[in-house]
Amino acid sequence: MPTGLPAANTVVASDDEGWVWAQIKAEARRDAESEPALASYLYSTILSHSSLERSLSFHLGNKLCSSTLLSTLLYDLFLNAFSSDPSLRSAAVADLRAARERDPACVSYSHCLLNYKGFLACQAHRVAHLLWRQSRRPLALALHSRIADVFAVDIHPAARIGKGILFDHATGVVVGETAVIGNNVSILHHVTLGGTGKVGGDRHPKIGDGVLIGAGATILGNIKIGEGAKVGAGSVVLIDVPARTTAVGNPARLVGGKETPSKHEDVPGESMDHTSFISEWSDYII
Amino acid sequence: MPTGLPAANTVVASDDEGWVWAQIKAEARRDAESEPALASYLYSTILSHSSLERSLSFHLGNKLCSSTLLSTLLYDLFLNAFSSDPSLRSAAVADLRAARERDPACVSYSHCLLNYKGFLACQAHRVAHLLWRQSRRPLALALHSRIADVFAVDIHPAARIGKGILFDHATGVVVGETAVIGNNVSILHHVTLGGTGKVGGDRHPKIGDGVLIGAGATILGNIKIGEGAKVGAGSVVLIDVPARTTAVGNPARLVGGKETPSKHEDVPGESMDHTSFISEWSDYII
Amino acid sequence: MPTGLPAANTVVASDDEGWVWAQIKAEARRDAESEPALASYLYSTILSHSSLERSLSFHLGNKLCSSTLLSTLLYDLFLNAFSSDPSLRSAAVADLRAARERDPACVSYSHCLLNYKGFLACQAHRVAHLLWRQSRRPLALALHSRIADVFAVDIHPAARIGKGILFDHATGVVVGETAVIGNNVSILHHVTLGGTGKVGGDRHPKIGDGVLIGAGATILGNIKIGEGAKVGAGSVVLIDVPARTTAVGNPARLVGGKETPSKHEDVPGESMDHTSFISEWSDYII
Amino acid sequence: MPTGLPAANTVVASDDEGWVWAQIKAEARRDAESEPALASYLYSTILSHSSLERSLSFHLGNKLCSSTLLSTLLYDLFLNAFSSDPSLRSAAVADLRAARERDPACVSYSHCLLNYKGFLACQAHRVAHLLWRQSRRPLALALHSRIADVFAVDIHPAARIGKGILFDHATGVVVGETAVIGNNVSILHHVTLGGTGKVGGDRHPKIGDGVLIGAGATILGNIKIGEGAKVGAGSVVLIDVPARTTAVGNPARLVGGKETPSKHEDVPGESMDHTSFISEWSDYII
Amino acid sequence: MPTGLPAANTVVASDDEGWVWAQIKAEARRDAESEPALASYLYSTILSHSSLERSLSFHLGNKLCSSTLLSTLLYDLFLNAFSSDPSLRSAAVADLRAARERDPACVSYSHCLLNYKGFLACQAHRVAHLLWRQSRRPLALALHSRIADVFAVDIHPAARIGKGILFDHATGVVVGETAVIGNNVSILHHVTLGGTGKVGGDRHPKIGDGVLIGAGATILGNIKIGEGAKVGAGSVVLIDVPARTTAVGNPARLVGGKETPSKHEDVPGESMDHTSFISEWSDYII
Amino acid sequence: MPTGLPAANTVVASDDEGWVWAQIKAEARRDAESEPALASYLYSTILSHSSLERSLSFHLGNKLCSSTLLSTLLYDLFLNAFSSDPSLRSAAVADLRAARERDPACVSYSHCLLNYKGFLACQAHRVAHLLWRQSRRPLALALHSRIADVFAVDIHPAARIGKGILFDHATGVVVGETAVIGNNVSILHHVTLGGTGKVGGDRHPKIGDGVLIGAGATILGNIKIGEGAKVGAGSVVLIDVPARTTAVGNPARLVGGKETPSKHEDVPGESMDHTSFISEWSDYII
Repeated sequence: MPTGLPAANTVVASDDEGWVWAQIKAEARRDAESEPALASYLYSTILSHSSLERSLSFHLGNKLCSSTLLSTLLYDLFLNAFSSDPSLRSAAVADLRAARERDPACVSYSHCLLNYKGFLACQAHRVAHLLWRQSRRPLALALHSRIADVFAVDIHPAARIGKGILFDHATGVVVGETAVIGNNVSILHHVTLGGTGKVGGDRHPKIGDGVLIGAGATILGNIKIGEGAKVGAGSVVLIDVPARTTAVGNPARLVGGKETPSKHEDVPGESMDHTSFISEWSDYII
Repeated sequence: MPTGLPAANTVVASDDEGWVWAQIKAEARRDAESEPALASYLYSTILSHSSLERSLSFHLGNKLCSSTLLSTLLYDLFLNAFSSDPSLRSAAVADLRAARERDPACVSYSHCLLNYKGFLACQAHRVAHLLWRQSRRPLALALHSRIADVFAVDIHPAARIGKGILFDHATGVVVGETAVIGNNVSILHHVTLGGTGKVGGDRHPKIGDGVLIGAGATILGNIKIGEGAKVGAGSVVLIDVPARTTAVGNPARLVGGKETPSKHEDVPGESMDHTSFISEWSDYII
Repeated sequence: MPTGLPAANTVVASDDEGWVWAQIKAEARRDAESEPALASYLYSTILSHSSLERSLSFHLGNKLCSSTLLSTLLYDLFLNAFSSDPSLRSAAVADLRAARERDPACVSYSHCLLNYKGFLACQAHRVAHLLWRQSRRPLALALHSRIADVFAVDIHPAARIGKGILFDHATGVVVGETAVIGNNVSILHHVTLGGTGKVGGDRHPKIGDGVLIGAGATILGNIKIGEGAKVGAGSVVLIDVPARTTAVGNPARLVGGKETPSKHEDVPGESMDHTSFISEWSDYII
Repeated sequence: MPTGLPAANTVVASDDEGWVWAQIKAEARRDAESEPALASYLYSTILSHSSLERSLSFHLGNKLCSSTLLSTLLYDLFLNAFSSDPSLRSAAVADLRAARERDPACVSYSHCLLNYKGFLACQAHRVAHLLWRQSRRPLALALHSRIADVFAVDIHPAARIGKGILFDHATGVVVGETAVIGNNVSILHHVTLGGTGKVGGDRHPKIGDGVLIGAGATILGNIKIGEGAKVGAGSVVLIDVPARTTAVGNPARLVGGKETPSKHEDVPGESMDHTSFISEWSDYII
Repeated sequence: MPTGLPAANTVVASDDEGWVWAQIKAEARRDAESEPALASYLYSTILSHSSLERSLSFHLGNKLCSSTLLSTLLYDLFLNAFSSDPSLRSAAVADLRAARERDPACVSYSHCLLNYKGFLACQAHRVAHLLWRQSRRPLALALHSRIADVFAVDIHPAARIGKGILFDHATGVVVGETAVIGNNVSILHHVTLGGTGKVGGDRHPKIGDGVLIGAGATILGNIKIGEGAKVGAGSVVLIDVPARTTAVGNPARLVGGKETPSKHEDVPGESMDHTSFISEWSDYII
Repeated sequence: MPTGLPAANTVVASDDEGWVWAQIKAEARRDAESEPALASYLYSTILSHSSLERSLSFHLGNKLCSSTLLSTLLYDLFLNAFSSDPSLRSAAVADLRAARERDPACVSYSHCLLNYKGFLACQAHRVAHLLWRQSRRPLALALHSRIADVFAVDIHPAARIGKGILFDHATGVVVGETAVIGNNVSILHHVTLGGTGKVGGDRHPKIGDGVLIGAGATILGNIKIGEGAKVGAGSVVLIDVPARTTAVGNPARLVGGKETPSKHEDVPGESMDHTSFISEWSDYII
């Protein structure tokens, strides 16, 4: 079970935050110079701001607003949250690094900050989660709804999510109320961490540190996906998956078999190795 | 085959509608008092309105409008439809009850009314369907397009849908032109009720009363999912599923086997039991 | 491997473009007359424009704009691209024809132009791809991000896509950076053409001409889906699929077996035959 | 003192309203055909509506809305008012006729309905006045504020205004709380009907039927401008003006002198004769 | 010459600010309860905010934003200014009191805060002036432009304005670059404090404490309007006006004559006595 | 009578246009660097554009759009007009120079381009006038209406206006249908060039080259204001004013007397000398 969730109010490694923000500004400045048609966008979202938290709050406020939830209200809400809770900022920095390091299509930090709906949905979720923990649940749920509408990413505000998370592509991700996601996890699009029925209580998956979950995987129930495990694309998982093993298929089976599953050494949530199990997947036969 | 589709112009159980609306107002009032940052939103969407149909029309008009389809036009369209057709209102009430009773994450009726994209997409679809039946097809299709853009829920306006429907999470749902969905059905996100090719005519699934369809299931062709049947998450179904049986897997097989499938007594569309079949799913072997 | 990608600057068959545009205007005029509530929309999007490229640029500019990327800027960008590159226009015409001919729910060209998120996302992608090839990458990625937000269709701007493409329903489609899609391909919703990990380089599928990919199929890695092949709904494909064969299941297997796969004569990307393989799919046993 | 204010709930001469509305639709149809670039605007504002009250409510709702006062709310407010109070509709028709007959630059009824800020401000004021009389004062004042922002026309919601009013050009008009304006009055831009200080009570001018007030005239205090009187452009009037006389200058004097003022026979509010007094204005000497 | 301009950074009488803010909230709460249609507006603009400065910043940001100057940017700008400079807040409070005490049509503090374009334009000007003094002139001028567009109130950001100012109705007010306005001044609409030509330097009027300037008055050049003086509506003033005298007419003359002008004891900027001079204005002769 | 109206299609002195545009870009670049909060605005309005006509079209389209007249439509309209008619561009350049040279508060060309409502209203009017001359009158009038709403500047689209015009402050300016304004004219705010009644035909003033009209002046009827004449602030003029004379007062009189009016040598429209006549204005007696 993941134990690495960020303690609230952990002091941020501000040097790290500062370094990433400086990178982002430098990237944006370079892009603004080379592409005047984009300069207005880059100035309004990045270059006019004095800090990552202001830039992110502005961007999220403008992305998530609607005619009945004004951008100024949301901006205020985000800015208060990011300013008062350093763990939100350090998580955002860790998530930026995760995208930059794990996704070869991520060409820059600013690209992730501006354009990755998975990154943006996750940061907005972190604020919704803070509101939830502060018992401001109606507001948390309204924010949740906006995230689901705008990004097609549906993370219940009560779900606990670690740091260094990559939601790659992100469209269609659903994470239920009692789900827990550890640190350094990578989750592709259309992944469901779902419940098992209409009974309340603890009913959603617990995803260990370093797990990789492939596109379209469906994981249901209060089960554990062990640290460093891998769930293949399109798999349907309803039973625990041991640490550092690989589950594939519908219904999912362990590569190497139930009794003697193959164990890998790397951390798939970081290495992003989606398909190396193929040769071992005996009945994969095209 | 579902037979319980609402007769047009059925007289609404107005007491029921009134009770739910009173609940919604009470919930919104309580939330507005406890959360001033949300009060403006709650007043504009709920508390300033004199009826559920006005609130819903306002909310849908503002959600679905665009720069070329103005909110005032859509508001007018919705209000006319909900005011003139009581069956639309009773279906909305039944859908609110379905979410409240079946989804443990649904904390209140107002939560569903405001935030559930599945609920909102379904109500907007009912209006599009009314327009379709009135031969106002271009308008029905324009509305369909807005629903698909805004909620990522793509229900063809010709599809017939019963009452007491829960589209849970809803992102990615696709329902084809000749599909029929009975009463008290629960459908998770990413579910497809699709066609079989480029030939027109009756080519989409018929979903019986009380069916439960798990996340990511794909059901293709003019086949019948029998009353009270259950389709497991991620299943691919291309052949009829008998009543009160469970189909799982890709390709889907009946739990208990083709000849002697297990039969359940409950109504899975209402009980929302997603995973109890696991122990019977013989080759599910992690 | 698809070889039919449009050469840049190919002279458009302007007669064809003209004919389709005349059809669109006639359809819109008919609809505007029969439905005054929609006339404003039809005039602003179609009837007030002098050409398909202007109509499409206007429509995309208004659909994809945000508070930080103004519609006027996007309109300008689209109009410049469509005006200067005839191959963009001929591809749009071919895509309109593909929807009209292959999708029985597509009642008119104007229906596709206005309402098909797959069509619109694809045309916007073509412009993003042009920007990418012109080394205007930050702008291409910003446009990519808007397409992913608005249509829930996530096509990397570097991906190469042929003509006569139908993205049917389209929600949740993900196409990676080095993917290539041939001509006359039909791709249903939730389809992923994904990569294999965090290593860069050529890592995404190559889809041959005339391929049909069913809903929810996941195709991963630098593999080839041969010309005229068919991938069943919900399939997970990680190895090459030969031309004119059918792969189904998770993991996907060839219908007819690995050694002697069944071969079909038609072009499934055009015939849209999703399910005829059922009788041959031996263990599909409901 | 004007006695001709419309009695509430007077039955409208519906034939007249119908005739004007038919004219407006015919004009809009003609213009939409000749000018496709304007057709969308004409359909959304006029041609998609089934009655003058709907068209006007839609147009005012869209003109006067803001990010905190939504168009749907205002549309609803206007539609309720115009639907329930026939005197509002008959006044609107009379005002349309006044513009069409008195202003040579008014080329059509639809031109006035769509483009005359004086006309639109006056109709919105009538609704604000209705709210005021219903003791819904905060709402009346909020509407007043929007009218003042959008049209630069500042009419206190308590001010009573007759029918057949032409506010020509209208920018900068200010009408105070206890002002009364009779029927068939024409008032040019920058006209002030102002109070005399900080004492409350009845403190603003009373404008008789058929009065013409020239551009920039300032009329202060609880004084009477007699029936059919004329106030020259730029005049400053602080004392009663007798019926059918002309006051000009700063301070205003009666043409013909205080004791034997010239009397005119026509109704200047209808004839719009601004300047015929010049020859009699003895010291006007350029 | 006015000497009472607020010293920057004067400590605000926070009790006073707190009292007014408490009044405003109480008024808004009462109005929200009595008028549900307005409650959303009142919550978003007043009741959701924790301080007057936040409410005012929110309201101004939403009023003055445009598609190219976003509300979030303006909100940030206003909030920074009002938070960091107490003299801006005390001036706003003094201006609220001025409207409440001097204008009988001002029924509440919240009415002024929300609806008085003169009040709002003046507070926005104070921020523009702060930017000007900080040598952020392009931003000050952009803000100036928005104020002039939205409120039709054109105050050059360099103009110095005291506290306790009432811009009544306000439409059309123009105040030039080197103008100075003292404390407790009341200025009606269409008043110009203008320059004398194209030569730069100190070229606009200096308005003493307690002055009242009637509607439409034009005051040109670097002249002094003495403390407690009164300028009649529509007057054109090009020469100094002594303290506590009254200038009226075009060209303006002193009531009582140049040599022995009548002197009044009250402070007309506070008493708002517009017209008591009439009996003394010998040639006012209607 | 002014004879210097620009011949249609005069070839623009493109060097001049190029020089001004280069200045504007340099100014905007400087301001963007010194004020990041404004950079987004400056890039979107100026720095992202390749020509003055594109910048101006973009800015006007965004300023004048409404929910029923989209910015993209207006942008297209403006760009077509400015691109096809060089005289519109040369007039804009001459107007920019007029503001820069005559108004000491105009600190840069970009300041005028972005912020001067008089400049922007005048350029938009020139396009409305072009539409009028092309017999696209409903569109011209719709544009006229937007200009009047947004800038509070009401110039009938038929009015003919020369080059090198300064509308200073501009709020409240009204120019009637048959008015003609020569070259190098300066007109202050609240100036009316009005008609004389309800009879059509040629009924508005003709303003000669080089005229200066002070704030709030009202000029009525088909009269001539001779070349180089000056009309004092607040004047009411109903009779011809000879060339190079000065008319002041209400009613206006010639400085120096009717028989022997003072003649000035300078061109007041360019020198902007508003008040030098005071010493000669014998009865101006404060």
